[in-house]
Amino acid sequence: MIIQLQPTIQTQDKQMIVEKITSLGYKTMEVTTQRGSYLIGIGKKEFDVRQVGHMRGIADIHRVSDEYKLVSGKWKVEPTVIDLGDGVTVGGGNLSIMAGPCSIENEQQVDLTINHLKENGVRIMRGGVYKPRSSPYAFRGLGIDGLKMWHERAQAAGIKIISEVMQVSQIETMYPYVDVFQVGARNTQNYNLLDELGKVDKPVLIKRGISGTIEELLSSAEYVFSAGNEKLILCERGIRTYEKASRNTMDINAIPILKSKTHLPVVADPSHAIGIREYVESIALASVMAGADGIIYETHQKPEEAFSDGQQTLDFNESARMVRKLKKAFELLAAES
Amino acid sequence: MIIQLQPTIQTQDKQMIVEKITSLGYKTMEVTTQRGSYLIGIGKKEFDVRQVGHMRGIADIHRVSDEYKLVSGKWKVEPTVIDLGDGVTVGGGNLSIMAGPCSIENEQQVDLTINHLKENGVRIMRGGVYKPRSSPYAFRGLGIDGLKMWHERAQAAGIKIISEVMQVSQIETMYPYVDVFQVGARNTQNYNLLDELGKVDKPVLIKRGISGTIEELLSSAEYVFSAGNEKLILCERGIRTYEKASRNTMDINAIPILKSKTHLPVVADPSHAIGIREYVESIALASVMAGADGIIYETHQKPEEAFSDGQQTLDFNESARMVRKLKKAFELLAAES
Amino acid sequence: MIIQLQPTIQTQDKQMIVEKITSLGYKTMEVTTQRGSYLIGIGKKEFDVRQVGHMRGIADIHRVSDEYKLVSGKWKVEPTVIDLGDGVTVGGGNLSIMAGPCSIENEQQVDLTINHLKENGVRIMRGGVYKPRSSPYAFRGLGIDGLKMWHERAQAAGIKIISEVMQVSQIETMYPYVDVFQVGARNTQNYNLLDELGKVDKPVLIKRGISGTIEELLSSAEYVFSAGNEKLILCERGIRTYEKASRNTMDINAIPILKSKTHLPVVADPSHAIGIREYVESIALASVMAGADGIIYETHQKPEEAFSDGQQTLDFNESARMVRKLKKAFELLAAES
Amino acid sequence: MIIQLQPTIQTQDKQMIVEKITSLGYKTMEVTTQRGSYLIGIGKKEFDVRQVGHMRGIADIHRVSDEYKLVSGKWKVEPTVIDLGDGVTVGGGNLSIMAGPCSIENEQQVDLTINHLKENGVRIMRGGVYKPRSSPYAFRGLGIDGLKMWHERAQAAGIKIISEVMQVSQIETMYPYVDVFQVGARNTQNYNLLDELGKVDKPVLIKRGISGTIEELLSSAEYVFSAGNEKLILCERGIRTYEKASRNTMDINAIPILKSKTHLPVVADPSHAIGIREYVESIALASVMAGADGIIYETHQKPEEAFSDGQQTLDFNESARMVRKLKKAFELLAAES
Repeated sequence: MIIQLQPTIQTQDKQMIVEKITSLGYKTMEVTTQRGSYLIGIGKKEFDVRQVGHMRGIADIHRVSDEYKLVSGKWKVEPTVIDLGDGVTVGGGNLSIMAGPCSIENEQQVDLTINHLKENGVRIMRGGVYKPRSSPYAFRGLGIDGLKMWHERAQAAGIKIISEVMQVSQIETMYPYVDVFQVGARNTQNYNLLDELGKVDKPVLIKRGISGTIEELLSSAEYVFSAGNEKLILCERGIRTYEKASRNTMDINAIPILKSKTHLPVVADPSHAIGIREYVESIALASVMAGADGIIYETHQKPEEAFSDGQQTLDFNESARMVRKLKKAFELLAAES
Repeated sequence: MIIQLQPTIQTQDKQMIVEKITSLGYKTMEVTTQRGSYLIGIGKKEFDVRQVGHMRGIADIHRVSDEYKLVSGKWKVEPTVIDLGDGVTVGGGNLSIMAGPCSIENEQQVDLTINHLKENGVRIMRGGVYKPRSSPYAFRGLGIDGLKMWHERAQAAGIKIISEVMQVSQIETMYPYVDVFQVGARNTQNYNLLDELGKVDKPVLIKRGISGTIEELLSSAEYVFSAGNEKLILCERGIRTYEKASRNTMDINAIPILKSKTHLPVVADPSHAIGIREYVESIALASVMAGADGIIYETHQKPEEAFSDGQQTLDFNESARMVRKLKKAFELLAAES
Repeated sequence: MIIQLQPTIQTQDKQMIVEKITSLGYKTMEVTTQRGSYLIGIGKKEFDVRQVGHMRGIADIHRVSDEYKLVSGKWKVEPTVIDLGDGVTVGGGNLSIMAGPCSIENEQQVDLTINHLKENGVRIMRGGVYKPRSSPYAFRGLGIDGLKMWHERAQAAGIKIISEVMQVSQIETMYPYVDVFQVGARNTQNYNLLDELGKVDKPVLIKRGISGTIEELLSSAEYVFSAGNEKLILCERGIRTYEKASRNTMDINAIPILKSKTHLPVVADPSHAIGIREYVESIALASVMAGADGIIYETHQKPEEAFSDGQQTLDFNESARMVRKLKKAFELLAAES
Repeated sequence: MIIQLQPTIQTQDKQMIVEKITSLGYKTMEVTTQRGSYLIGIGKKEFDVRQVGHMRGIADIHRVSDEYKLVSGKWKVEPTVIDLGDGVTVGGGNLSIMAGPCSIENEQQVDLTINHLKENGVRIMRGGVYKPRSSPYAFRGLGIDGLKMWHERAQAAGIKIISEVMQVSQIETMYPYVDVFQVGARNTQNYNLLDELGKVDKPVLIKRGISGTIEELLSSAEYVFSAGNEKLILCERGIRTYEKASRNTMDINAIPILKSKTHLPVVADPSHAIGIREYVESIALASVMAGADGIIYETHQKPEEAFSDGQQTLDFNESARMVRKLKKAFELLAAES
């Protein structure tokens, strides 16, 4: 159960609501985000909502039986739109494209990428400065200095930045230099990280776990939302299956399922979902056609020389062609709906 | 190694080629299909193709290192087109739509479905008369009488029939009444059935196994081809994974991968791939955009009353709307290529 | 619902029972096996069993809500024991060991294997004469001649034979020469084959499908049982997962789960379950300790020269050592229960 | 490549070795643990080890081509033994049993559990005070106060403590009160946490990821080892597959595979691996028989009243019986090896 509270609610009215809900056999948890205040009621008992609905300070009340509550589409019908400023938004009827290298490597690479994005009307650049690597001996990214260098250039060009945060201590360090925090597939259930990201006022994109369920992805988003941050984007990036002809198995089913279960924007990462450069475009197009609000993918001026993930990275020609097609596909879908 | 033989080759020339290939350390198998004659060489030794290429009776010679040979796109560059007669084809730049109920139920259902297909320009009707069911106590289909009834009506309407064959003895029985034999997901590795289907001259659609790999699907097709039947269609229908939010996990990656590995047409079955009626359209659109040559899906005049698979079956309104969108998506993709 | 009928039941009494059950909203199916007669009632309505239980000709009546009925442990509490003759049994408190090569190759191999088995007190020999192979160009087995040669030698030595049947037409051919028909993992859901095996009076061992569920394995057994053959053995042989460090993933959980769900004997195939020779013993021991009624594994006089599956095949020294340990483990478990 | 350095090595000798290795095309990383100093060489070039082996300060040199190096069994043949003090060890020919509740709940529960363990000769108690929960609204554990209470009682009784650490900031807080840090399945690839655990001198048990590969588990251990902590225990706890008859699928294959790939002790968690109380014993016995060095499982005085995981938790009678059987199985295996 979600009880939306009025902004002007008095403490003592809130207390009375909590007591009433408790007496009905529900545990309550209060959530205050940048956008509103809520009481979450956890329990299974059936009762007549009118017993509560008339109480002072309540704006609205909704039954939500899913394990996740605030991210559910059952109480919030209009889609959430994330505003990154300068006219850049994610969700709500736009196609958001986020592109860039796997790893930020150096100034030249950043400049070339920014130029490429500007020429193709892409407003958000992805890139890693902290890289989760399965081997401790692999390249782990440029770190905060790389991020600062990148931020200076991106800001000057009007390009927004999305980058992965791997641990709680990096949140504060990265905060001034990113527009969207990305939670990687290995951290989808790193609950402490999610809790802390709930306390910042910048958007968070959560990738689905390497073998995470759709339900778990929504529950991870619930962590961030219930800790105070409503600015959430979900990302399907392929799951681990027995099939080894591709790096992961893109779960295209997850796109329409997520879109119907939650009000949050849903984007797809075709680069990781298939892991083979020549097929990335097909999966990106399929994702848009399945209803994705955006695409996040890897591009590099010379994929064969990229520090990481070169085998799934588009060059700029391929990237430009794909962006053009994605826009046409998105327009077609919008026209037909 | 695939050696294409000239139609006019003399027996003794063929014998000399076999001896030469054997002396190079290869085992050979001769394949004769409705369309041509081939010698398949199985082995790993490297040698200079020119030692063989000049021999009398050889039309062409190709190295193919995959375990599957004749279905590989490495030796046959132009896509295979399956001609069902009356202007109905599968593959080769057309979008093939195959629709109909899970099970053939009765005359009225067949008539209603045929009308629906004709109104929407769909030329191929799917339907089961032999149903593989996990419980021996479930409805197993109308059998051959149902097929005859269906065939009579479909033929009169100019509609082609695709239907599942479950065992060798059904091939002969079904032969006069089907235009395409369908091999179901549980029979993808029923090698005796595949061998026998290699001896008929009607097309065969092979569904990917419930947890089959892309490689295994191609090897199953190789069985039919090497037994004499080149008229093959491959079908992605979702795979079994840990995710239970959908019936199966549509492996959208398989579409572009199969299209690049084989010259055979590739279609998608969104009904089984997601298993939830409201999302079938999204998956069908995604499949077309990923490069599928066709879509095979379930539709019924009253899905909630269907004998089987009602939860993933479109009604005729949904079906008509989807067909219209699929055509637009296919046109867009063709225009952009 | 399972109604056990008295052997002496009159046709008209049976008819009255069917009418009564039907009037309660159940569909009925009559099953006659070598061991008894049953009426299976399929339905969900609740009713007082006493309404039916007193009717003439009924020996007993059991509620079974699982999709599988006759193989369920809910109505038949004592474990099923399969008698192969000459004192060789499977199930019921014995450890059954079945060993032999992947493929029957020649007379010498058969003789060496039989000697090895006799020396180690193993009474059942496995071996394939029809081999399901993913490539049509691979060795497909010696066929019926190989089986006859093998049978002659095994019979003379008092060794029982288990061998895979791949299609309906082989049942009759193989019948005189095998003691147990084996259904391979690719045919677990080949329902026509299962139906036909229900009509023979020799035992059938059903391997779990490559990615079959425990429920599906039980349903496959239900096919054979409901078609008339109660002599069934279930076999866990590993399932397909994302983990590639082993050929399959042995689902050790399936052993105690199957043992509690069904009255049928359950054996394990460690050779296919892990696929790596040096670890086969560990998995065999684990299976016994988890409650398996038997072990079926691959052994060959020279595994490195075996026609197939050499990488997972034990030599005779390893085999002898393993048999000795398996017996000790089985004794320990029996002593502790 | 792993170069073991002599304890007395001079800085300038070490520098010369690094230069030599670098000149051969290898990147080097120096690792100092509580037990020794190593240079890890990362590269693929072949060279004659004798070029390096004679240099001053080198104790030994080993080729290790796996992605993981220091945890590999290829350079360190004797098994690692973890000493927890007071005669409690893990690995090296002993069976280590770790038992206790999912969550630490209160003083009475702790006392009852400690008594139970002492009566059955179990020296290590498991229990969670920080609980990773997929829903933010679920019970998250008693936290550090619960740990202190537990520690006081356990220490008085001579019982060692293993408990899960979820984030970097908890390491210091928990340090005085635990004997073994446990890394949970959701944190197996939380590399920052692993890095920090490499800096402490207490043992770390790493659970395999929910869908982690064996290779990834070893790489996670490599993180901790290469950051300085050699005291590592690996734990198989079941993986996520399509099979839903059990909570997870116990990968029994992982036990012998891990034992042969690494010198670290390997334990099994049957409670999570199957998730069903009545079958836990079977899986524990199977794990021991497959070669596990220990078993970690859940027990509670009243499983049906446990705060979490009650459905997979043994009561004390079941626990006592299982411990007795595990010891007998372990003795049998030891006697036969």
